[in-house]
Amino acid sequence: MTNVQDTIEMYRKQNTDKARLLIKCPDQPGIVAAVSSFLVENGANIIESSQYSADPEGGNFFIRMEFHCPGLNLKREELEQSFVEISSKFDMTYEFRYVHDIKKTAIFVSKEPHCLMELLWEWQNGDLMMDIKCIISNYEDSKGLAESLGIPFYYIPANKDIRQQVEEKQLNILHEHGIELIILARYMQILTPHFVSHYPNQIVNIHHSFLPAFIGARPYERAYKRGVKLIGATSHYVTNDLDEGPIIEQGVERVNHRDNVEDMKRIGRNIERSVLARAIKWHIQDRVIVDGNKTIVF
Amino acid sequence: MTNVQDTIEMYRKQNTDKARLLIKCPDQPGIVAAVSSFLVENGANIIESSQYSADPEGGNFFIRMEFHCPGLNLKREELEQSFVEISSKFDMTYEFRYVHDIKKTAIFVSKEPHCLMELLWEWQNGDLMMDIKCIISNYEDSKGLAESLGIPFYYIPANKDIRQQVEEKQLNILHEHGIELIILARYMQILTPHFVSHYPNQIVNIHHSFLPAFIGARPYERAYKRGVKLIGATSHYVTNDLDEGPIIEQGVERVNHRDNVEDMKRIGRNIERSVLARAIKWHIQDRVIVDGNKTIVF
Amino acid sequence: MTNVQDTIEMYRKQNTDKARLLIKCPDQPGIVAAVSSFLVENGANIIESSQYSADPEGGNFFIRMEFHCPGLNLKREELEQSFVEISSKFDMTYEFRYVHDIKKTAIFVSKEPHCLMELLWEWQNGDLMMDIKCIISNYEDSKGLAESLGIPFYYIPANKDIRQQVEEKQLNILHEHGIELIILARYMQILTPHFVSHYPNQIVNIHHSFLPAFIGARPYERAYKRGVKLIGATSHYVTNDLDEGPIIEQGVERVNHRDNVEDMKRIGRNIERSVLARAIKWHIQDRVIVDGNKTIVF
Amino acid sequence: MTNVQDTIEMYRKQNTDKARLLIKCPDQPGIVAAVSSFLVENGANIIESSQYSADPEGGNFFIRMEFHCPGLNLKREELEQSFVEISSKFDMTYEFRYVHDIKKTAIFVSKEPHCLMELLWEWQNGDLMMDIKCIISNYEDSKGLAESLGIPFYYIPANKDIRQQVEEKQLNILHEHGIELIILARYMQILTPHFVSHYPNQIVNIHHSFLPAFIGARPYERAYKRGVKLIGATSHYVTNDLDEGPIIEQGVERVNHRDNVEDMKRIGRNIERSVLARAIKWHIQDRVIVDGNKTIVF
Repeated sequence: MTNVQDTIEMYRKQNTDKARLLIKCPDQPGIVAAVSSFLVENGANIIESSQYSADPEGGNFFIRMEFHCPGLNLKREELEQSFVEISSKFDMTYEFRYVHDIKKTAIFVSKEPHCLMELLWEWQNGDLMMDIKCIISNYEDSKGLAESLGIPFYYIPANKDIRQQVEEKQLNILHEHGIELIILARYMQILTPHFVSHYPNQIVNIHHSFLPAFIGARPYERAYKRGVKLIGATSHYVTNDLDEGPIIEQGVERVNHRDNVEDMKRIGRNIERSVLARAIKWHIQDRVIVDGNKTIVF
Repeated sequence: MTNVQDTIEMYRKQNTDKARLLIKCPDQPGIVAAVSSFLVENGANIIESSQYSADPEGGNFFIRMEFHCPGLNLKREELEQSFVEISSKFDMTYEFRYVHDIKKTAIFVSKEPHCLMELLWEWQNGDLMMDIKCIISNYEDSKGLAESLGIPFYYIPANKDIRQQVEEKQLNILHEHGIELIILARYMQILTPHFVSHYPNQIVNIHHSFLPAFIGARPYERAYKRGVKLIGATSHYVTNDLDEGPIIEQGVERVNHRDNVEDMKRIGRNIERSVLARAIKWHIQDRVIVDGNKTIVF
Repeated sequence: MTNVQDTIEMYRKQNTDKARLLIKCPDQPGIVAAVSSFLVENGANIIESSQYSADPEGGNFFIRMEFHCPGLNLKREELEQSFVEISSKFDMTYEFRYVHDIKKTAIFVSKEPHCLMELLWEWQNGDLMMDIKCIISNYEDSKGLAESLGIPFYYIPANKDIRQQVEEKQLNILHEHGIELIILARYMQILTPHFVSHYPNQIVNIHHSFLPAFIGARPYERAYKRGVKLIGATSHYVTNDLDEGPIIEQGVERVNHRDNVEDMKRIGRNIERSVLARAIKWHIQDRVIVDGNKTIVF
Repeated sequence: MTNVQDTIEMYRKQNTDKARLLIKCPDQPGIVAAVSSFLVENGANIIESSQYSADPEGGNFFIRMEFHCPGLNLKREELEQSFVEISSKFDMTYEFRYVHDIKKTAIFVSKEPHCLMELLWEWQNGDLMMDIKCIISNYEDSKGLAESLGIPFYYIPANKDIRQQVEEKQLNILHEHGIELIILARYMQILTPHFVSHYPNQIVNIHHSFLPAFIGARPYERAYKRGVKLIGATSHYVTNDLDEGPIIEQGVERVNHRDNVEDMKRIGRNIERSVLARAIKWHIQDRVIVDGNKTIVF
């Protein structure tokens, strides 16, 4: 555990002067010039920049700029203040995200541990820079794993009859930890609109099918019955429409007539964990911008 | 054209002594021993053999054996006659397919030529051994291409109001040519149950989505709207349930937020043509066995 | 043929006001701001922009900006003139490329036509916007195809003993047509340093292996002998080191123990043609920047 | 730990009556008939069968049959005895492998734990049925992990100067545990011919490149320098020629100009662990037959 915390601390120290600026605004000439000039004038150097015009004639414009700015930690407020003028001029929705502030994260899991394990593993490797504050589960299976890594584990039995009470408890825990990102790592309970409304575009789920095929329950059983030749997994933000939220990432693998439902589940586990890990990586690097029911992944 | 016909003739000559035996029967001990002994006793050498037990405890058993048998051409009838005893004993559904008898094929196409072109190309390369008897289209666009290769081209305008007359004409042509395989290479008309019933498991379609996602019309538009990160194509046998027939092969490619509907169509064209070409290749090599609404691809 | 030329003309008309600015310079703060401000001040709107810092601390900086500028055709010179000041300040190597000026292209081919066919096909579809001025071959096989599309075909027999004379003839033809891009679509002759020196970073080859594995001749034979489980193809710029030039794109497909050399060649043909087509597409869209012996593909 | 051992015990119990027969012999008619008749006569039912003729005209023939035979445990010797006649007749090299006898395995690892972790994880899931007898390492890093799973861990510091003593110790341990399979899960020491000769086709390595590209040390550094667009990993049997043994499985992933050596290593870790896990899975299911310097994977 010491190791992970050391790695995180070193990462945070190395990144006190880095931030990302995410912007969405109506497309028009001059945006890039204005923003990049602003950054230069404020002593920042742009490290990485990606942009996208949904439709050059009259659509929205999106940009993600990662920049380095000496002494950033001390002048965050000043920088944000000075940006107001530009943002008003171009009618921007925007956000400054500081690399130093790694996201306070909660992982929800039910019985199957493979996605949780993959996340914890890459996190221990230093490949997923997030601050895992807690693991919440309706089963006790992952308790040992969580505790061996020094992560608080909350066992909250759940079923649809006690959904309200369960979510109340969960929301309290999330609130207490100041959670900014919730990862549903094969958490097999449906969340209510009330719960979801607290974390817009902050809940990432892994669905065990290549959406929109096999929306809903038991996708591997249905894939097997349909006789598909590829199975997949989809990571998406959770909205109030089941399995209909903005897709972040998808992956597939080949199957054939020899693969029964159990084989598909086994193959699927590998797809699920790698798809979820990629989606989380992009999310915590602030690479994902939600645009309606779609994502832009910079 | 001479070249293709030469290649085909050479292929047929080299394969006068080769056949494939496809069997489906209730699983029980002794099937492989009985069939392989039968072949040996009849002077055949097994070149390739694949088998599959749907469920070792009480399901069906499937086997495909490709064998070489000197003088096969002269003793087909005798061989098939002697097999009756074994087939009865094991309650087999079976078929002898002679490699020499390449399949008489009709290709249906509408406006988009890419799948037709891929098939003709691989056919010219000697990679798809089939006897293309005709191309049927509700547009005239592919006429020149067909004729430059010496393939009869039938232009039959079609729409849902004249479906019956259209299919009558088509069936006459197919009958006349003794067609054994119909390839729908982006033929955008729905076939009636009457038509389909004439060619069970002999009509292969390419659907421009990763089924069962986006069943029906305009799949790329819907894929774009849904914001998927992978698009695909599916080749399947045509049944009376639209896009629900047994799947032979599927493929996918990555897309991202920058790809609009036109980009997806362009990327999709490459998936469609390669998926269809693979499915046809397996079909004409008698590698595909239909089992209920699924395929076994040996 | 009329169709292709019509498509090209329409494309050129639609793009009279579009250009791409490619820049390489030592990394330092202010580059993006300076360039984007310059473009805005000159009435241009940035449509797409990609950048890359080889090493934020002291390496090179690369940027590709695609912009739209009303009346661009009339003010190219003026625009380029005004850019000199910025380019000097930041010590830039740069180029303005006008979308309207599609690249004058020569395709070299030997006996195997699959790469040539793929390029011509995508060109006919409007997916590869280039001005194919001629096809040059040391075999006559592709003559009919070239002429059916109205493309001048030059048959120049070649072997290593007459290399100098052959290249002399080829260079004359290329010069006459003002060629800007040479595609070696499975052209099986080695080019001399003299020839290559005339077209730095303008000759794109497809090598039939996953470089640097199987550099040199007969890669499929050697892949078969080594027993690899994936075979590949590599598209790269031609330099004086055989198969060692900057790689633009690579692709692979699975093979197994059943695939003999002929099967590998057949599978390889599909990899080769799609890898080469992607590389050419990126090249003609000015997405590829050569940096030493590597490429940046924006 | 209890769980894994329980799963293994259940698996062994469920498979007391299953075996695999692996055969290599000169190709000739009648082999399949003879073997399958033999099995039927001995009360066995063939569950799965795969065969391969290296060259139907005069090459070797390979077959793998998995069969179920009630009471197999008690009549192994008898069965093997009766097979001698057939094996002599067809000049077979062959082996009976009993599913019940899961392979006694040693895992060697150096500093990087990702491959070891993947193997242990899939082993805990019941996806890799092997009897892990020990973990041997020249670093102490994995000690805690091994011990938490109840697996004996041997720390044996190693370098080229003490190679002989080190291997002596290792061989003693392997001998003591009756090891049948050695997995080099990123073990970064070269093994001597003496060591290798004790375990022909029983040592599986993972090399961190797409062989034969980047044979030897520091493949990611060299891949980065060469500017490849795909990186890979290769799992192979260890022979006395460094990185030249029979390849079992390979995999690749895309990289681009933004990926530095560290990124490639990170991406590579994921390829390495999944490629090695697949290779091991096939090996312990007796699906891999070595033929000269190649493998047949059934």
